[in-house]
Amino acid sequence: MRGLFLEDSKLTYREDLQAPEPGADDTLVDVIQAGVCATDLALSRGYMGFTGVPGHEFVGVARTGPLAGKRVVGDINAACGTCETCVAGNPHHCPNRTVLGIFQHGGAFAEQLCLPTRNLLEVPETVSSDAATFVEPLAAAFEIGEQVKLEVGQRALVAGDGKLGLLCAWALHVAGVTVTVAGRHAERSELLPDAVELRTGMLEQDAVQDVKFDVVVEATGRESVLPRVLAFVRPRGTIVLKTTTEAATTIDLSPLVVDEITMVGSRCGPYDKALAALADGTVPVEKLIDARFPLRDGVEAFARAGAGGVLKVLVELG
Amino acid sequence: MRGLFLEDSKLTYREDLQAPEPGADDTLVDVIQAGVCATDLALSRGYMGFTGVPGHEFVGVARTGPLAGKRVVGDINAACGTCETCVAGNPHHCPNRTVLGIFQHGGAFAEQLCLPTRNLLEVPETVSSDAATFVEPLAAAFEIGEQVKLEVGQRALVAGDGKLGLLCAWALHVAGVTVTVAGRHAERSELLPDAVELRTGMLEQDAVQDVKFDVVVEATGRESVLPRVLAFVRPRGTIVLKTTTEAATTIDLSPLVVDEITMVGSRCGPYDKALAALADGTVPVEKLIDARFPLRDGVEAFARAGAGGVLKVLVELG
Repeated sequence: MRGLFLEDSKLTYREDLQAPEPGADDTLVDVIQAGVCATDLALSRGYMGFTGVPGHEFVGVARTGPLAGKRVVGDINAACGTCETCVAGNPHHCPNRTVLGIFQHGGAFAEQLCLPTRNLLEVPETVSSDAATFVEPLAAAFEIGEQVKLEVGQRALVAGDGKLGLLCAWALHVAGVTVTVAGRHAERSELLPDAVELRTGMLEQDAVQDVKFDVVVEATGRESVLPRVLAFVRPRGTIVLKTTTEAATTIDLSPLVVDEITMVGSRCGPYDKALAALADGTVPVEKLIDARFPLRDGVEAFARAGAGGVLKVLVELG
Repeated sequence: MRGLFLEDSKLTYREDLQAPEPGADDTLVDVIQAGVCATDLALSRGYMGFTGVPGHEFVGVARTGPLAGKRVVGDINAACGTCETCVAGNPHHCPNRTVLGIFQHGGAFAEQLCLPTRNLLEVPETVSSDAATFVEPLAAAFEIGEQVKLEVGQRALVAGDGKLGLLCAWALHVAGVTVTVAGRHAERSELLPDAVELRTGMLEQDAVQDVKFDVVVEATGRESVLPRVLAFVRPRGTIVLKTTTEAATTIDLSPLVVDEITMVGSRCGPYDKALAALADGTVPVEKLIDARFPLRDGVEAFARAGAGGVLKVLVELG
């Protein structure tokens, strides 16, 4: 089949790839389109040493199984389903899991992908394929509310006005939280709810911060940012780490101890809730689409996604 | 009055100190004895730039106020009592607070100290003055249970077999948690409950860790330890930071994100619960006493406390 292939930090377009072979509990999916994520860019620079087809933000059509012929999205964590962690209802942390396009599992920048059938969700007719492509990052944004008790009237700061930062701002706003985004692109305020303020230059200040937030979300992926956002969290407040960084962070953690701050790592989230929010139009994700490339120009799609100030880049199959 | 005085990272014994002057809501306390804490040692090296009488682990006799003549211990956080944070029931995080012997508030290595009367607790007759001197660090250990939902059968690792590490191990054990201490002094197992295992060499291993814990407590105060203990936390587990470090920590936080680990800073705790645990003999803290010095030899007491392998050093007044 045709697809993008990553090996030794080099991404190529190939037409001789082996199609995935579904097991008894798997479904083969014909990919419609897939989004390029910051993690894909990191993988292409060697992060996690991934070899194979990258891509984990997708919408497709099930070719086999009970959903055959239906449009589907899917949870990217292919858990074993039988270990202690899975049985305890925690498949996202299954120690035996593979992860679509990220870890030991061929991904979505190819004609076909394969996932456990239980991972798939049918996309309602009212949800466009463009919107459906955002279900994975939107679910990741909704994960904040699964981990942190969000309350109406709380104040949150989202560090980062990239794709994930904007989606986190939406997820917090929907939960009734008053949100400020600390970003670098003033024009992106139009991609946010009216009630959300986007401020530039906030993270570049060295001064002691007077304004303190109940919740601060780190969504920049830059290791220099966490030490700075620490100053924006109120005592006993919470920092949510939504992004990994490629380099180590050097940070004085004393304020975390003195102010008894909680820092929580946050990864994949509830796909069903994200899909429901797409179905009722709560989060207008299509506005985040910046460009589209056919699969054969996938390498160019990655280059575009990695350029400064670019939001979502889609790779279209078919 | 007589006391120890810290200025420009130099500690001296002096006999010409000004006695503290209690306000209307304060109580003057004649100090019986005070313990030297790792924070005192850090302050004496310049941490936080403190100038004044250090010392915050104390037992004394109230000289004024409703508890006059009684033995007392006290919460070291002198909060304003009127700000938003105080009114919300969070005086330990009052932005206007001073902290006994740590921040803008003369401390316990002197004949007298002064605290808001509401901060004081009467010491029951069954509690020795030696035991009562441990109420502050024991309360700090009990703070873990105030912040983290501890459950019988959970497994915890305490990094550090110093004074605070041992007290944290006791606090977790009392809560029904199965505790392992990663320490450097095998002989300190006799200071721990029989059910607690003390292992040496655990934190020096570079290998991937097979054994994972629900809760890991960092109580070494060494900035090199946190990156190592991260490998011992199970996915969705919790790291409790009980100690500040004098240098910044350099750490790859990606595992925190991928495994959705929670890291929570933890400081002062519930004095009433600690005093109750001392009253019923649950935690035999007296065993942690290593040496006693009269106030005039307080500088020597600090030197002794800072020597390797030394547990609690007391400074006696009177």
